[in-house]
Amino acid sequence: MVTYNKLKILNDPIYGFISIPNSLLYDLIEHPYFQRLRRINQMGLSYLVYPGATHTRFHHALGCMHMMQKAVQVLKSKNVEISQEEENALYIAILLHDIGHGPFSHAMENSIVENVHHEEISLFFMNALNDEFNGQLSLAIEIFKGNYHRKFLLQLISSQMDMDRMDYLKRDSFYSGVAEGNINSERLVQMINVHDDYLVVEEKGIYSVEKFLVGRRLMYWQCYLHKTSVMAEMILTKILKRAKELTEKGVHLWCSDSLHFFLTNHIEKADFNKEALKKFALLDDSDIIGALKNWQFHEDFILSSLSNSIINRNLFHILNVEKNQQNELLDLYRKQINSELQLDMNELDYFVFGGMMKNKAYDKNAEPIRILTKNKQIIDVLQASDQSNLAALSVPVKKYFVCFPKNITLKNIQ
Amino acid sequence: MVTYNKLKILNDPIYGFISIPNSLLYDLIEHPYFQRLRRINQMGLSYLVYPGATHTRFHHALGCMHMMQKAVQVLKSKNVEISQEEENALYIAILLHDIGHGPFSHAMENSIVENVHHEEISLFFMNALNDEFNGQLSLAIEIFKGNYHRKFLLQLISSQMDMDRMDYLKRDSFYSGVAEGNINSERLVQMINVHDDYLVVEEKGIYSVEKFLVGRRLMYWQCYLHKTSVMAEMILTKILKRAKELTEKGVHLWCSDSLHFFLTNHIEKADFNKEALKKFALLDDSDIIGALKNWQFHEDFILSSLSNSIINRNLFHILNVEKNQQNELLDLYRKQINSELQLDMNELDYFVFGGMMKNKAYDKNAEPIRILTKNKQIIDVLQASDQSNLAALSVPVKKYFVCFPKNITLKNIQ
Amino acid sequence: MVTYNKLKILNDPIYGFISIPNSLLYDLIEHPYFQRLRRINQMGLSYLVYPGATHTRFHHALGCMHMMQKAVQVLKSKNVEISQEEENALYIAILLHDIGHGPFSHAMENSIVENVHHEEISLFFMNALNDEFNGQLSLAIEIFKGNYHRKFLLQLISSQMDMDRMDYLKRDSFYSGVAEGNINSERLVQMINVHDDYLVVEEKGIYSVEKFLVGRRLMYWQCYLHKTSVMAEMILTKILKRAKELTEKGVHLWCSDSLHFFLTNHIEKADFNKEALKKFALLDDSDIIGALKNWQFHEDFILSSLSNSIINRNLFHILNVEKNQQNELLDLYRKQINSELQLDMNELDYFVFGGMMKNKAYDKNAEPIRILTKNKQIIDVLQASDQSNLAALSVPVKKYFVCFPKNITLKNIQ
Amino acid sequence: MVTYNKLKILNDPIYGFISIPNSLLYDLIEHPYFQRLRRINQMGLSYLVYPGATHTRFHHALGCMHMMQKAVQVLKSKNVEISQEEENALYIAILLHDIGHGPFSHAMENSIVENVHHEEISLFFMNALNDEFNGQLSLAIEIFKGNYHRKFLLQLISSQMDMDRMDYLKRDSFYSGVAEGNINSERLVQMINVHDDYLVVEEKGIYSVEKFLVGRRLMYWQCYLHKTSVMAEMILTKILKRAKELTEKGVHLWCSDSLHFFLTNHIEKADFNKEALKKFALLDDSDIIGALKNWQFHEDFILSSLSNSIINRNLFHILNVEKNQQNELLDLYRKQINSELQLDMNELDYFVFGGMMKNKAYDKNAEPIRILTKNKQIIDVLQASDQSNLAALSVPVKKYFVCFPKNITLKNIQ
Repeated sequence: MVTYNKLKILNDPIYGFISIPNSLLYDLIEHPYFQRLRRINQMGLSYLVYPGATHTRFHHALGCMHMMQKAVQVLKSKNVEISQEEENALYIAILLHDIGHGPFSHAMENSIVENVHHEEISLFFMNALNDEFNGQLSLAIEIFKGNYHRKFLLQLISSQMDMDRMDYLKRDSFYSGVAEGNINSERLVQMINVHDDYLVVEEKGIYSVEKFLVGRRLMYWQCYLHKTSVMAEMILTKILKRAKELTEKGVHLWCSDSLHFFLTNHIEKADFNKEALKKFALLDDSDIIGALKNWQFHEDFILSSLSNSIINRNLFHILNVEKNQQNELLDLYRKQINSELQLDMNELDYFVFGGMMKNKAYDKNAEPIRILTKNKQIIDVLQASDQSNLAALSVPVKKYFVCFPKNITLKNIQ
Repeated sequence: MVTYNKLKILNDPIYGFISIPNSLLYDLIEHPYFQRLRRINQMGLSYLVYPGATHTRFHHALGCMHMMQKAVQVLKSKNVEISQEEENALYIAILLHDIGHGPFSHAMENSIVENVHHEEISLFFMNALNDEFNGQLSLAIEIFKGNYHRKFLLQLISSQMDMDRMDYLKRDSFYSGVAEGNINSERLVQMINVHDDYLVVEEKGIYSVEKFLVGRRLMYWQCYLHKTSVMAEMILTKILKRAKELTEKGVHLWCSDSLHFFLTNHIEKADFNKEALKKFALLDDSDIIGALKNWQFHEDFILSSLSNSIINRNLFHILNVEKNQQNELLDLYRKQINSELQLDMNELDYFVFGGMMKNKAYDKNAEPIRILTKNKQIIDVLQASDQSNLAALSVPVKKYFVCFPKNITLKNIQ
Repeated sequence: MVTYNKLKILNDPIYGFISIPNSLLYDLIEHPYFQRLRRINQMGLSYLVYPGATHTRFHHALGCMHMMQKAVQVLKSKNVEISQEEENALYIAILLHDIGHGPFSHAMENSIVENVHHEEISLFFMNALNDEFNGQLSLAIEIFKGNYHRKFLLQLISSQMDMDRMDYLKRDSFYSGVAEGNINSERLVQMINVHDDYLVVEEKGIYSVEKFLVGRRLMYWQCYLHKTSVMAEMILTKILKRAKELTEKGVHLWCSDSLHFFLTNHIEKADFNKEALKKFALLDDSDIIGALKNWQFHEDFILSSLSNSIINRNLFHILNVEKNQQNELLDLYRKQINSELQLDMNELDYFVFGGMMKNKAYDKNAEPIRILTKNKQIIDVLQASDQSNLAALSVPVKKYFVCFPKNITLKNIQ
Repeated sequence: MVTYNKLKILNDPIYGFISIPNSLLYDLIEHPYFQRLRRINQMGLSYLVYPGATHTRFHHALGCMHMMQKAVQVLKSKNVEISQEEENALYIAILLHDIGHGPFSHAMENSIVENVHHEEISLFFMNALNDEFNGQLSLAIEIFKGNYHRKFLLQLISSQMDMDRMDYLKRDSFYSGVAEGNINSERLVQMINVHDDYLVVEEKGIYSVEKFLVGRRLMYWQCYLHKTSVMAEMILTKILKRAKELTEKGVHLWCSDSLHFFLTNHIEKADFNKEALKKFALLDDSDIIGALKNWQFHEDFILSSLSNSIINRNLFHILNVEKNQQNELLDLYRKQINSELQLDMNELDYFVFGGMMKNKAYDKNAEPIRILTKNKQIIDVLQASDQSNLAALSVPVKKYFVCFPKNITLKNIQ
């Protein structure tokens, strides 16, 4: 018999190499449910602003697994006991924590898969895989659901300083080229420890935490909440809503089978049975992009012009405004556009809309980042910092905006 | 009037920033023909081997334009005269030199767009754009076609040390994480000059050229000719051939309009009229990926199993073999598979196939890389190097291989 | 005649290449006054904490000149008029702005060259060079002294966002390996402009400024004010004071001629005539290190044990304490040590001493960093930021400390 | 008792962090013999060409220890048994392998410490430390001397792919800014293994080895054998010879005690007793630089002009010549200079001299780099490569040169 070893090492521009710790992890990665993440962009439509941001959820999930391996290595070297089974569960849980993301997840969640959060779908996938893999994912699922008694294991997977953030902040900064957001994850993870079953950062790492939070704040404003991305995502949400509206009216829209399934069925959390999950598992960016490319020529004016706007990057204007100005301005733009296009109020909402963005680098109401002082006290990082700098980072900042098409002639409103 | 500036600077993880030199370039970039490159992966299916290799032809084209700006800056600082018009033409030509690539270009060119090279399609696009932009691309096209009297301008666009290679070797190495292939383009471009109308490298840059050629060689073996990529591309070629075969027999295959056009029409160079170009301009990775996702469930065994192989990464085996062994081994595998599957000979070729890869870091029969010695002589880089190292790099290396499916039980053949 | 070109390009690990813009700059760099900076460490004794921090003031000065070239290029591309003469003056002034630094500058300024600030000595050097170079440095000197009418030129040389900081923060972070302090100077400099004769940063660069200030803050705590460095520097200051004390008493101390000159003469600003400047120009790190190596075997207990402490890295303890605790603790340690060593009060000060460190990333009382808003208003960066984060950075933080030798047996004081 | 932890982690710009594995290693690093390496530049006078090349032998030794830790980790993960004692011995041996280097080692070895190779002095130091540390270095010394039965341990310390080269090629390339020589040590070390007691590289690492050897070749020509460095080193050798000559004649030369010891005593290998070792242990760059600074004003014309040449970078010309031209040219230059300076023949040799440089990236007569093929055969890397590229790298290249002062008026000789 010719036998072939399972691939064990993957190249990564960020960490150099990512190794796959064992054959169960290898098999999970090879599973079509996980391979599908290769076809889902990690940053949605951000590539319209940052052409380098083409990395996928597949690569991010592998990066998380790598960072988790580093974290386990660091903790073990500091004599934190982690059993072989727990270690394995950590790798499984972090690898799969985002498997429930669909293509352009935020737009999807606000249109055709309403009221089902991607973390819930991740859990559906994990359970399905657990069946297929004869219960080998059970501990990972327990930890992920917060049911396991050792709490720091969950904190490594999901908290304000989890391995997810370690990877995505670094990776998104790297690929987008937004160097201001670069954080030194490999360095920060050297500083972690466990004390009283809490994940903590040793005191000497306080400046690294500070830099991490500042980096996070900058990534939010420059990437995740970049005005143009936010607007493009809102347009995509509106496209999908319109497509559903039209489909419900019986208008034929060319699209893939699986997208068709979600346009024609109202799927809520309770409906996520095996069939829905299988259909969902077939969805990726190509379904959406493929549909938009077709729809840009559809006879429905709204569907075609919005689709064209994304496909050919004929994006809208987006202006930051004061909160109390917002409604007045929306009215103004609606009137102006209406005088050109004669749309009804419902239709106008597809072209003139507003919103609010909120950024908070550190959430003082959530599970804190804990600092372990030299004399073994645990304090919140806010208290540990030598100045009000970090406190400032926990104050949420809100920005209001309005969006409207570029090709509309507008009188000067300022 | 509210007016909005044209975006002038783009983030790039490699160079930091890429600036767009003027509004004509800006408008070309904004054109749907160019925006389409955002949806075409630069390295085809290589992301199945290197998960980071998700960068696009859009980004590469911008990178080339950036390197060309550096080259112009260096040459001008060395008192090479380049007129404003020539400079602009260089930027246009390098930006558009690859615009004729379709999705998974090599597979396409060997299946559904036979006998039309992507450079010819680039020229079709350039001419179409030249019409739209009132002749402003004329000089760029003249240079691109080799008709302009100053030959070094073409050498900057297309030669063994052009700005295309400067960017793609660096970019592909960067994103794939194949660090061995990293070249220092920004450094190398500092060393160029023009002498007797030839593009030359100054003698002190000889080690940089050597490193560039070695890097190129390593990128070929580790990326462009990576066994798994080559095999995946051959499978994709076979999928598209099968799809065409079935379509011609009248079998219905779900796919996008534009892909359907190329499956049902036999398009040769002479057929590339406006309509064909418009259809071609709508093709991108999502058409192919979307089709494969659907076809993996098609009733045609060949189409579905090959499509599944790409979508779910159930790839084939690929073995390096001696040239004289190749046919014998192909026969052996065909027999073995046939005993399981009962296919006819034509069908068997979809599952068992071989090929040859050739790598030559430096082509001594092509336009040479010229070194300008300190006493102003021009010599071929092969003569300039202090040892036979570079000579060795110009000897082509050939590797033969055979491919066959993994899930076939094979007796040990070695 | 065999002729040789002046070297025009230098390798730099940070920027790749540094070019020397013209032959006057080349000749200034070749001058012994400037070559001397090759032998003066940029970060003093920090290499005792960060072994990589061995870069020199020579390299930093070249790096500043490089950043200034970038700044001039950016400003010119934004249509800021800078004459050839002004441009040249900027390069000269930034190249020479730190030429007055002696070895281990802070220790020197607090011991043997009291009350003469290195910027004043820089001016002495510039004037001496101006004589030698026939007045070609006159404009540079005018700008440096603040006498020139275009104020932004001085701001490029000396302000809270000058090219000096651009280089030293980046360079010190790079060589020390304190990645938290890394700033993206090349990016930040893209954002500068001139408005109403002020150096400004364009609004879109606000996050880069924020990252710059945070980076500066972190570099202060982790490098410039690292406890061990501060303590080592205080020990060196005390060594030089002791050496002066002993020399004044007629005790013979082996050292270089030029160090001997400063030990035996009391040199104040008014004494900085040609001879003193020439002697000063011969001082570098080797004079100090050479002396300490010899003095570690001197019969004076204080001189030898402190010298040994630096040379063999037998450093003292340094503890952060509350301000109101400081005196009490100093007394305690003095008593304890005295019980072992029987020193008089003056001598005790060589072994037990305290101090205060102050860090302020942004000084709101100094020349501000000015932001140019999109509607062409100039505002202080503190007002421009979207939250209190930057305000926090302008609040000075003070830390108090006490130092004492390690080999003293101390009862637990906590 | 106030207790203080031993420092365990050091920042490194290249690897991020270097950890000190245990307290014995910590104590060795703290020892004055090792701390002395902080004051010895790794690349001698190369900083006259590459201003960034100011890193020290101290940092390199730590870097080697770090790479050795990586190597041990990789080998253990591949089930190579390495006992705790062997592991420790590896760290000690690699840490101390270069401890016998004096300041500007090559110049020293060719002048005042003739016929004693630095590796022999390393062994003297190791033995002295072994006495002090009660025999804890014995196994390290056995391995270092080649007496231990497991040969791959020595190969990790000293061979054509040892951890010494892994660190110094990377570090020297990094600090000098000669990017062409950058090698990916962390990647290469992932590929090592042990087979039949030989250190081997797994076949998939063949391209990394190729890049390593090409990088080495480029580092030799661009750094270690850079014409200007080689010439500066020859001048320094001549200065030290002249100093010895003058001292022997009874001329007084200001210098440090320890340098004086070596100028006045003829020390051969057999003379390296405890006293000589202690004197040697006090020598570092500051002794040489301090002396040269003084000697540039000495009344001996040869000593002062050569010293001035190094201190103020008034370097000589160095020309590459054909072997058969060399003597003729030396005669020509000697005559020319003599007509100006009236020196005798012995004196002329201080100003006009020649030499030969030899570069061989891979030595096929030494212990080979062994490749482990997929079917577990060991072959020499020369055989393993797919083309003659590597063979070319094992051919030695020789270059001949002549040196002479710049300020001499020379008639055109070409």
